[in-house]
Amino acid sequence: MPTAFARAETIAVGSELLALGRTDTNSGVIAGRLASLGIDVVARSIVGDQLAHLELAVRTALQRADVVMLTGGLGPTEDDLTRQAVAAALGRTLHEDPVQLARIEERFSKRGLPMPDINRRQALLIEGAVRLDNPNGTAPGQWIDLGDQAIALLPGPPREMVPMLDGLVAGALGARASAACTHSRGLRVAGRSESSVEATLLPLYAKWREGSLPIEATILAALGRIELYLFVRTADAAAAGAVLDQAIAEAADALGASVYTTRDESLEELAGRLLSEAGWRVAVAESCTGGMLAARMTDVPGSSAWLDGGVIAYSNALKTVLADVPPALIAEHGAVSEPVALALAAGARARCSTQVGIGITGIAGPDGGTDAKPVGTVFIALHTPRVIACRQARFVGDRAVVRQQSVSAALDMLRLALTGHDPVGLAR
Amino acid sequence: MPTAFARAETIAVGSELLALGRTDTNSGVIAGRLASLGIDVVARSIVGDQLAHLELAVRTALQRADVVMLTGGLGPTEDDLTRQAVAAALGRTLHEDPVQLARIEERFSKRGLPMPDINRRQALLIEGAVRLDNPNGTAPGQWIDLGDQAIALLPGPPREMVPMLDGLVAGALGARASAACTHSRGLRVAGRSESSVEATLLPLYAKWREGSLPIEATILAALGRIELYLFVRTADAAAAGAVLDQAIAEAADALGASVYTTRDESLEELAGRLLSEAGWRVAVAESCTGGMLAARMTDVPGSSAWLDGGVIAYSNALKTVLADVPPALIAEHGAVSEPVALALAAGARARCSTQVGIGITGIAGPDGGTDAKPVGTVFIALHTPRVIACRQARFVGDRAVVRQQSVSAALDMLRLALTGHDPVGLAR
Repeated sequence: MPTAFARAETIAVGSELLALGRTDTNSGVIAGRLASLGIDVVARSIVGDQLAHLELAVRTALQRADVVMLTGGLGPTEDDLTRQAVAAALGRTLHEDPVQLARIEERFSKRGLPMPDINRRQALLIEGAVRLDNPNGTAPGQWIDLGDQAIALLPGPPREMVPMLDGLVAGALGARASAACTHSRGLRVAGRSESSVEATLLPLYAKWREGSLPIEATILAALGRIELYLFVRTADAAAAGAVLDQAIAEAADALGASVYTTRDESLEELAGRLLSEAGWRVAVAESCTGGMLAARMTDVPGSSAWLDGGVIAYSNALKTVLADVPPALIAEHGAVSEPVALALAAGARARCSTQVGIGITGIAGPDGGTDAKPVGTVFIALHTPRVIACRQARFVGDRAVVRQQSVSAALDMLRLALTGHDPVGLAR
Repeated sequence: MPTAFARAETIAVGSELLALGRTDTNSGVIAGRLASLGIDVVARSIVGDQLAHLELAVRTALQRADVVMLTGGLGPTEDDLTRQAVAAALGRTLHEDPVQLARIEERFSKRGLPMPDINRRQALLIEGAVRLDNPNGTAPGQWIDLGDQAIALLPGPPREMVPMLDGLVAGALGARASAACTHSRGLRVAGRSESSVEATLLPLYAKWREGSLPIEATILAALGRIELYLFVRTADAAAAGAVLDQAIAEAADALGASVYTTRDESLEELAGRLLSEAGWRVAVAESCTGGMLAARMTDVPGSSAWLDGGVIAYSNALKTVLADVPPALIAEHGAVSEPVALALAAGARARCSTQVGIGITGIAGPDGGTDAKPVGTVFIALHTPRVIACRQARFVGDRAVVRQQSVSAALDMLRLALTGHDPVGLAR
């Protein structure tokens, strides 16, 4: 019985995929189909139409992958070089396939056309290759079984490539599927840095790796959140689930209240769900974020169930006109201050008749910073029936980063308050 | 004098780029910058976090490229392996850079935190490498000049990578630019579809290609705008400039008032500039866009010079409370209607004492559509001292698309009005 394939590499061929605007969508489709067979893509390349570069790419791929999936470069023109490159990489010859040649000729004659001589090239098969029929074009695919490894040559146009790929998945590739496939779980953390999360989890990593089913962990940093993903590779789905659930519970325990979800759920979706459960509605008064907090909340379908709206008080005058912030408070403490943030939250709540108000005021930059209040200084106030709190944050980054972090921090304060935590206690 | 670089290869590092829906955007940005130096990307790879695979990728790239640009894998965690992989591929050692170590420690201490021990890893420099400073993060870049070749290690987060790349383009990379390089010009179009722009330009394409300096054209579609790019490859910068300016003028003439800029400028930057020139200030009243219009405007640094703020009137009650929309108007015409959009614009203007008011109300979906007003129906009203106008749009797409398109359409109405055009006349 032949060995199962575990690792794959995709190579998309064509200089047009390296220039502006064109995107290689085939590699993603292939990765998805292979994942369903338990085969991981370990590298993905796009290579221009240079014979030497392509041959090198194929040889490189054979050093790290069991299956090499090439797309494109099977057309009739001089810069369609995939057939030649694979033949050269394997040290094999090319020969004209009479069956395929007849098919190409028939395709043209059906349209009343003679076959242009350059299309003969599309009938060339690599020594030992199996022809893969292409009902949607003149370029056939090829499948080369090398024993422990295999190479597929597929056409570039997706509507020609995908049916051929599906044929392989049902046939030659499916027969070499790994019994073991990758199972995963994840969790999301707010209000902590990537390295702080990593430092907390480090003792668990070693333990996870040494279990009977070893767990691989990956940490991803996004703006305002950290994501942890755990992976197990096995044929036993039930065992994988048990091991992963246990590990996620350990990670959540170690990370504490900074973990906001173990689902595929954003902070704003979670905050909305918690608001709905509490029967509370929210309104905002935003200065430096200029509407971004409300925009992120209203990204969530059905957010009208828990959000009424609010005010964008970008100018000082509007802080008073729209949110009742006393001008004397601004004069005394400055527009970027805890008293003004608290007044904005209270004003939003009162004007909009909601249970919850959020006020944000800060210096997003690039200008406006002072020694006492540098760029990145943001005050975020939360006013609920149970808590009135304000966090002073100092975010590091450009204008966009400061604004995004402010919004994420506000949503996280809301989440913490709604789950019975101190909304500013965890901030670091 | 060192030889010019002609061929480059990009390697994006990270298993998450091969799975989990993350997209590598860095390689495209790098390809664009290199093109401006006359350096073509001949291959592009994404490689997972496996030391052997990465080392192989670097060695392979050095066989076909003059410059190898790596992004990602410079973080502090155990699966950040780019430094080690490049060192191994070159047979060089890694050493701790005291200057960089001090910088990382300082970055943490500024936030009142001790540096976690794992961050030491980010101070490791490859033998012979020049450190590239990273003002936006803890991971420094590295530049290794190998004589005829060079390797750059850049961080993965685009906001850290791009400034470092620009530094290289202005410095070490720019010094090795090819004589013949690609010159380009572009323009941006609002309110038209990609195929409509393409159909208008088709007659020009052939002419441009047959000139003494042939021009290549590419059209890119982004949300709410179409971008046209023209390219000429030559060592004669003056000739390229003349030919491109002429072609851009021809394209702008054919496309008319839908062309909003021939600079690298967003609609919101342009609208802000035009408002400043007119001496007018703007306020918004947003329903279905929930703050996105104001958020996009306040993305622009210095937007306080022309924007005061506004209201987010997501619920019907707040349309009245915050923007004085008469309840009878909502009862008679529905919240998603031209009269309500016009009342929102007038209310924003009056409440905020600005010259310009913009009102948006619509059905972003997924629910809430009816036969008469399906999902995607949006009314956008503009009220200036010179014009009162409302556009009824029907956008096609999901909730996010409808909202983004609504914001772009509002900004374009503002742009048209401020340049003396009919703000709804071009809409299609």
